[in-house]
Amino acid sequence: MKVNNTNYRTIWPDPKNPKVVKIIDQRHLPHKFVIEDLCRVDDFAKAIFEMHVRGAGLIGATAGFGFYSALLHASPNHFEADMEKAAAQLIATRPTASNLLWAVKRQQEAIATESSIEAKISKAFATACEIADEDADFCRRLGEHGKELIAQISKQKKGKPVNILTHCNAGWLAFVDYGSATAPIYAAHKAGIGVHVWVDETRPWLQGAKLTAWELGQENVPHTLIPDNTGGHLMQHGMVDMVIVGTDRTTRSGDVANKIGTYLKALAAKDNDVPFYVALPSSTFDWTIRDGVKDIPIEERSADEIKFISGLTEDGRNETVLIAPPETKGANYGFDVTPARLVRGLITERGITAANERDICAMYADLA
Amino acid sequence: MKVNNTNYRTIWPDPKNPKVVKIIDQRHLPHKFVIEDLCRVDDFAKAIFEMHVRGAGLIGATAGFGFYSALLHASPNHFEADMEKAAAQLIATRPTASNLLWAVKRQQEAIATESSIEAKISKAFATACEIADEDADFCRRLGEHGKELIAQISKQKKGKPVNILTHCNAGWLAFVDYGSATAPIYAAHKAGIGVHVWVDETRPWLQGAKLTAWELGQENVPHTLIPDNTGGHLMQHGMVDMVIVGTDRTTRSGDVANKIGTYLKALAAKDNDVPFYVALPSSTFDWTIRDGVKDIPIEERSADEIKFISGLTEDGRNETVLIAPPETKGANYGFDVTPARLVRGLITERGITAANERDICAMYADLA
Repeated sequence: MKVNNTNYRTIWPDPKNPKVVKIIDQRHLPHKFVIEDLCRVDDFAKAIFEMHVRGAGLIGATAGFGFYSALLHASPNHFEADMEKAAAQLIATRPTASNLLWAVKRQQEAIATESSIEAKISKAFATACEIADEDADFCRRLGEHGKELIAQISKQKKGKPVNILTHCNAGWLAFVDYGSATAPIYAAHKAGIGVHVWVDETRPWLQGAKLTAWELGQENVPHTLIPDNTGGHLMQHGMVDMVIVGTDRTTRSGDVANKIGTYLKALAAKDNDVPFYVALPSSTFDWTIRDGVKDIPIEERSADEIKFISGLTEDGRNETVLIAPPETKGANYGFDVTPARLVRGLITERGITAANERDICAMYADLA
Repeated sequence: MKVNNTNYRTIWPDPKNPKVVKIIDQRHLPHKFVIEDLCRVDDFAKAIFEMHVRGAGLIGATAGFGFYSALLHASPNHFEADMEKAAAQLIATRPTASNLLWAVKRQQEAIATESSIEAKISKAFATACEIADEDADFCRRLGEHGKELIAQISKQKKGKPVNILTHCNAGWLAFVDYGSATAPIYAAHKAGIGVHVWVDETRPWLQGAKLTAWELGQENVPHTLIPDNTGGHLMQHGMVDMVIVGTDRTTRSGDVANKIGTYLKALAAKDNDVPFYVALPSSTFDWTIRDGVKDIPIEERSADEIKFISGLTEDGRNETVLIAPPETKGANYGFDVTPARLVRGLITERGITAANERDICAMYADLA
């Protein structure tokens, strides 16, 4: 998608030196556009853990390239051990993220059939590129399916803008390109369907304010920033036509882990009969579990992410400020789980399915 | 309640000069404790509008003293006109707040029976003091009633701490003393009942992070700060025993306007069978309306309150930072309405009542 009218992806191998992988360091957005070079597996793990990159698909793609980078620098004397250590290191960075496990497993399986170290490295590079390309392609395809839902509402509203609420950033910055929740929005906007997006600011990291508002702005999609507390009021007053969010892990029965606060929006949508959709490429399904509330591990992060907020001062400096008493304790859960009963449908690269095991597994019979 | 181990109220006439009224300027908390002198009605209106003071009861008390101040400085040549202008000015500051209208009306009625200007001024001072004292007394009394609810849960939990979630600041800083939502908590804590408070930070103004966390800390009540997005997750995992919030206006049928985001917590409480209580002195009832969603006006404030956040830098300066793209638009609704069907009960100075017109009006037959 576009940054200052130039097309970018969120991650790509350096065309001049494929041992180096480039990412957009998202911590600096929206105030600065910074590209970072990742060279060693430690760089990749740090980039994921410290959230230079974040979002379901992008975490997977970064882990894919990170695994390749680990092989590139593994010792021929203990190649297998180095590889396993790198896999564990990458997986440990973000416990809720399903794509992370998925990408590492895909790499492990891909290189298993290669015998020489050179062939394994070469295969890992190809697989990392494949994971990234497939992520972009799946998002593009799910965008086309989701666009039809928006088109239907647009028709019912006789062409008046369709008001879509989204939480966190499930935009192209969270994937390799297009995004999950945003892909239908970009597709509709491109097709000339009127849309307006309510952007939840998404505390504590403010991915909505810092990333979603920025990327929608770059693509000229009309949008309004709101505190996370606002969505229920808007729905009570008929100001939201649909909700589309992303997910970090979805169970085979349709329970959806996503950024903390998603469950509250799903409850409000249900209470006001607003359709609540979750957009995901199939890489985000966790086929091994059913009960999301019970079985999806929820990441806990530092309370400092709540108590300190960074932004731009009037004179253009980046500054961090404390917003609570210094001695106050905080609890910082990264995600919550929205039960399938609150989800109107899942928008995937294969089409739209109801959020229940029978329908999901019918659509993904080859994977489930 | 206590500030650095000294007892304070949020508003009081200067004992050395009763033409001056003193308030805690809450914009500087938690990092600085600032007392401000209010001398003219413009000072009072500004203090309410710019949120030097805020919260249902305190807005009422401030309007009461503001009305008195207006009389003190009204011209004898057009006393009535000055008085009416001041009343309108005070009421216009915060459209959702019920106590504001209530306090101004109470003043108007109180002075109507006095004939001389001197007598009117003297009556207005006495009434302002009465409003403030009554607010403190009602909060203390509702605290005693609410304490019993906490004691019951504590008993069920065999003395393990009762986890209470609250939103915004309905603490003593929002009233003259004790608070509404916090009064039962302070009463329970003082009685040796174990409590722990989940403090919603409450975007955009962060009253939870800046005020509730601070006042609970000053009283040594155990508490944990959380983003507004967190409560649903906590309730899903049995980590919340009850919710207590305040209200800025409650209809005769029990619909509750409170800080934006309250409705989302009420939905989560219902979905997880967590009792959701609203604490209020009777001055917050609006006896003239039934349908809160339809009939309570919802204040809209500047989008700058979302896009800019103030806090303390590492070197101890107050600084304001921009957290979104500069050109991003925002929508800043101050309140939402929680329908009575989601409210387990109302904790008032007369006792606890179900949130429906019959029971509320039976308890307040003399007012309703």
